[in-house]
Amino acid sequence: MTRYKLTIAYDGAKFHGFQSQPNLRTVQGVIEKALSKMTKGKEIILVGSGRTDAGVHAYGQVIHFDYPGYIPAENMLKAINSLMPLDIVVKDSQIVDEDFHARYGVKRKTYLYRVDCGHYTDPFKRFYAGHYSYSYDLEKIQTALKDLIGEHDFSSFAASGGVIENKVRTIYEAQVKYLPDENELVFEFTGNGFLYNMVRILVATVLEIGSGRRPVHDFIRLFEVKDRQEARGTAPANGLYLKKVFYD
Amino acid sequence: MTRYKLTIAYDGAKFHGFQSQPNLRTVQGVIEKALSKMTKGKEIILVGSGRTDAGVHAYGQVIHFDYPGYIPAENMLKAINSLMPLDIVVKDSQIVDEDFHARYGVKRKTYLYRVDCGHYTDPFKRFYAGHYSYSYDLEKIQTALKDLIGEHDFSSFAASGGVIENKVRTIYEAQVKYLPDENELVFEFTGNGFLYNMVRILVATVLEIGSGRRPVHDFIRLFEVKDRQEARGTAPANGLYLKKVFYD
Repeated sequence: MTRYKLTIAYDGAKFHGFQSQPNLRTVQGVIEKALSKMTKGKEIILVGSGRTDAGVHAYGQVIHFDYPGYIPAENMLKAINSLMPLDIVVKDSQIVDEDFHARYGVKRKTYLYRVDCGHYTDPFKRFYAGHYSYSYDLEKIQTALKDLIGEHDFSSFAASGGVIENKVRTIYEAQVKYLPDENELVFEFTGNGFLYNMVRILVATVLEIGSGRRPVHDFIRLFEVKDRQEARGTAPANGLYLKKVFYD
Repeated sequence: MTRYKLTIAYDGAKFHGFQSQPNLRTVQGVIEKALSKMTKGKEIILVGSGRTDAGVHAYGQVIHFDYPGYIPAENMLKAINSLMPLDIVVKDSQIVDEDFHARYGVKRKTYLYRVDCGHYTDPFKRFYAGHYSYSYDLEKIQTALKDLIGEHDFSSFAASGGVIENKVRTIYEAQVKYLPDENELVFEFTGNGFLYNMVRILVATVLEIGSGRRPVHDFIRLFEVKDRQEARGTAPANGLYLKKVFYD
């Protein structure tokens, strides 16, 4: 058995998320099916760094699996890519020790969130960005994002349905830049872990801060109240990108 | 009757081109159907500045039509947009004189062509750019594009099947820029008219010049030979964008 670590990108628009589901097209399902062709039917189970929801994209999702036999890493990349549909690509392939684990070994993750600020919904961004046509104060957004840095209890920012008890996470970076040519806000968050829907709820909340509907330092209050009802909105899945996963 | 001039954008990936065809989803068909809802079934025929093929996009296609009655231009824009799918948007609406004609009145058109130069096919660009992974010399491409400026016989660059006899066109601008963040070449052509597939054939040819498979000034020879077999390639439809249409 040889353990492979792959870095993959996918356009999430036409997938029912990362994780395998019966009779639905998922990223995991498509790759596992390709691997089973390579092993002539022997089932291989992928492990991803984490799930992504339907419509969520990835520039740098990381997966691992154990392959029965040895293929050079570069050949594994080419073999899988030759079996991939056009909305998934393997960008990097490495052979790793068997103590590498794509999920348990994660140290940090970086997510992007794109917000189209145009008056109308841009036909080219309908699958690739959220849309926010209200006016906003960029400085307020930038000030608010600084409150996220550090270790906080993100209970107010976790979608119900999660099973994780401990909702304390550390955020290392929370930034936004405005791209004038695209008329887009691009958020970037790096942390040691993210709760279910957390990035999307953070984006929805900080946009409300930007438009003046919440006080600038509302994140601090929300950390204290630990109440999902207080943060309310969730930005749509199609603006979210898993950019990078970090390991030791 | 009131004549409206609309500027529209569309993502061409899911359309069988601009022009109406029975039982196929086309841009013209979708908009005409929306207009017939507004007129309670009375048929309205659109005139576009020209056709775009299946998969070709538009940032600024121009259309006109005559509406039985009067609606302020801004309200027409909102009414149509409320009936549009997410891959078409009306960006501008004007009431024009009845001597305005979206096709016969065209003075210039600008097309973009995006070429992804990455090693692998980017999942996010599969519908939105051509792909060229050979090495190329940007200066050679820039030098070659200068040969296009002016009035030339583009017979070598017209797909067979066109019915137009006169293949002389004037090119005012032919440029390329390299976007390092995207690893993309973006071509831009402005001319008084373009033959069927002409931009796509020009791009395929200039990329062959860039990679050294043709001499730098091969365009000059191709103008003279007037032979479509000599230009050969056609870049794929999905990289092409009708950017702007100019009228007097």
